[in-house]
Amino acid sequence: MLYALQLLGVAVFAASGALAAGRRRMDLLGVVVIAIVTAVGGGTIRDVLLERHPVFWIREPVYLVVSIVAALATLVYTRRRRPPRNSLAVADAIGLGMFAIGGAQIAEPFGYGPVVTVLMGTITGVAGGVIRDVLSAEVPLILRKGELYATAAIAGIVAYLVLEWMRLPHPAPALIGMSTVVALRLAAILWGLELPVIPIDER
Amino acid sequence: MLYALQLLGVAVFAASGALAAGRRRMDLLGVVVIAIVTAVGGGTIRDVLLERHPVFWIREPVYLVVSIVAALATLVYTRRRRPPRNSLAVADAIGLGMFAIGGAQIAEPFGYGPVVTVLMGTITGVAGGVIRDVLSAEVPLILRKGELYATAAIAGIVAYLVLEWMRLPHPAPALIGMSTVVALRLAAILWGLELPVIPIDER
Amino acid sequence: MLYALQLLGVAVFAASGALAAGRRRMDLLGVVVIAIVTAVGGGTIRDVLLERHPVFWIREPVYLVVSIVAALATLVYTRRRRPPRNSLAVADAIGLGMFAIGGAQIAEPFGYGPVVTVLMGTITGVAGGVIRDVLSAEVPLILRKGELYATAAIAGIVAYLVLEWMRLPHPAPALIGMSTVVALRLAAILWGLELPVIPIDER
Repeated sequence: MLYALQLLGVAVFAASGALAAGRRRMDLLGVVVIAIVTAVGGGTIRDVLLERHPVFWIREPVYLVVSIVAALATLVYTRRRRPPRNSLAVADAIGLGMFAIGGAQIAEPFGYGPVVTVLMGTITGVAGGVIRDVLSAEVPLILRKGELYATAAIAGIVAYLVLEWMRLPHPAPALIGMSTVVALRLAAILWGLELPVIPIDER
Repeated sequence: MLYALQLLGVAVFAASGALAAGRRRMDLLGVVVIAIVTAVGGGTIRDVLLERHPVFWIREPVYLVVSIVAALATLVYTRRRRPPRNSLAVADAIGLGMFAIGGAQIAEPFGYGPVVTVLMGTITGVAGGVIRDVLSAEVPLILRKGELYATAAIAGIVAYLVLEWMRLPHPAPALIGMSTVVALRLAAILWGLELPVIPIDER
Repeated sequence: MLYALQLLGVAVFAASGALAAGRRRMDLLGVVVIAIVTAVGGGTIRDVLLERHPVFWIREPVYLVVSIVAALATLVYTRRRRPPRNSLAVADAIGLGMFAIGGAQIAEPFGYGPVVTVLMGTITGVAGGVIRDVLSAEVPLILRKGELYATAAIAGIVAYLVLEWMRLPHPAPALIGMSTVVALRLAAILWGLELPVIPIDER
């Protein structure tokens, strides 16, 4: 089931990459490349940092195939209808939740402690989208005020680790952690929920 | 001969990095640093992902020396004459072709299958230029409409793999693959050849 | 003492990342994430390229803790007073010097020769700030004319290697190398000292 969730997360992030690249009017294969990078970027950085070789999509190229199919399906769909704005945001939130918790679960057995585990989960969830935004020459989503992006990932992973430490039966901690990420992201999108911003006016 | 081609590709990409950095009015050593990163960036990511250690330019620092010399030669040349626009485009196309096919050849013996091989060749060819563009605060070339950048690399690698699978004698597949990349890039530049673009008008 | 210097460098770069993120009005955890990436980014790339596993902050998460504390302290401080412009520049220069020389010292025993050692020290000193600038959607500091950023790092590392090769007693080469970096950066900031720029007007 974790495996199915990971594949679903890859598909969702590939679709978001295809949408971003399509908006910039890239050509067909350019869209596919951006979709792949968005979908596997975060997990790739995690695997390299953890020295977890070979990187997950090299060991299982099905992740690449899923990314390509999701990117093409996105392009076909958007030729017929406008992409539904909120359903994409919901899908992206689910992808973020699955990647953040999944990344933390992969980092945990390495035994580097909670700070490293939280950071690895956050990187897994966030880095692909950051690469997508940088390659699309947009301001990274994690930088936009009131998006609660990294914040949602960190809060969900911390919830997951605390519940696990309280010995909640498996898979409750993971499910609650994912739900926390999704709920925070959706609250940020729907109601403008946000963390305090500390404005710095240096010049 | 592959070795000579790799060195030539490094020199060509270093020159393109030096030109990009020079246009942004960076100072002398800044230009050299951008030139090195452009020249070795793609191969570095490939080696890290394939766990091919040490990274090629650490094992053979001659690649760094060639990058530095090419960057300095570019600066000296451009003090005297305007850089010839089309000859740079041709050189860049040749560099892309050599890096894409060379990267695929390096990835092949790892036995991860064609999808990973194509992606590794594409990364080798494209990533250095992407880093150059991001560091120069320009919109990445692979994003500009009608440039066929990633597309040319992918098409050439696929041609190479198909011809090899058809048992064409060495080195015909590699040469035809490289020629495909170069021809597609030049056709894109000269005649505006492009893949279909799927416009997405979300907002 | 090298250890204390490394920790101080991490704190200084984390503060600079927090300032950059705060200026972009990111929320609290976003600021912390950018601060961490700025502080450990350069050393992380160095460790991955040298295959020096596990990466330094995975082996010693105290670096992450120091980054987080420094980021929070920066936010608290800037709520009360304007951040002192020149003291930040001085601190950043000190951080650059410590990271450049420290990175070179870590690369040296791998025995890949002086060119690789200089590049590794430069990456260690410069890459974190580049990532910070790219994530903050600013033009990278190393690109801004007259900043002598990469130049100061390279000059200091070369001074360090030359003095070491002349068999100056330890730790004189490292201290002189660091001082060279700091002096060049401050001279660039205070008096506009700069390397020759080779303008390229291609179009």
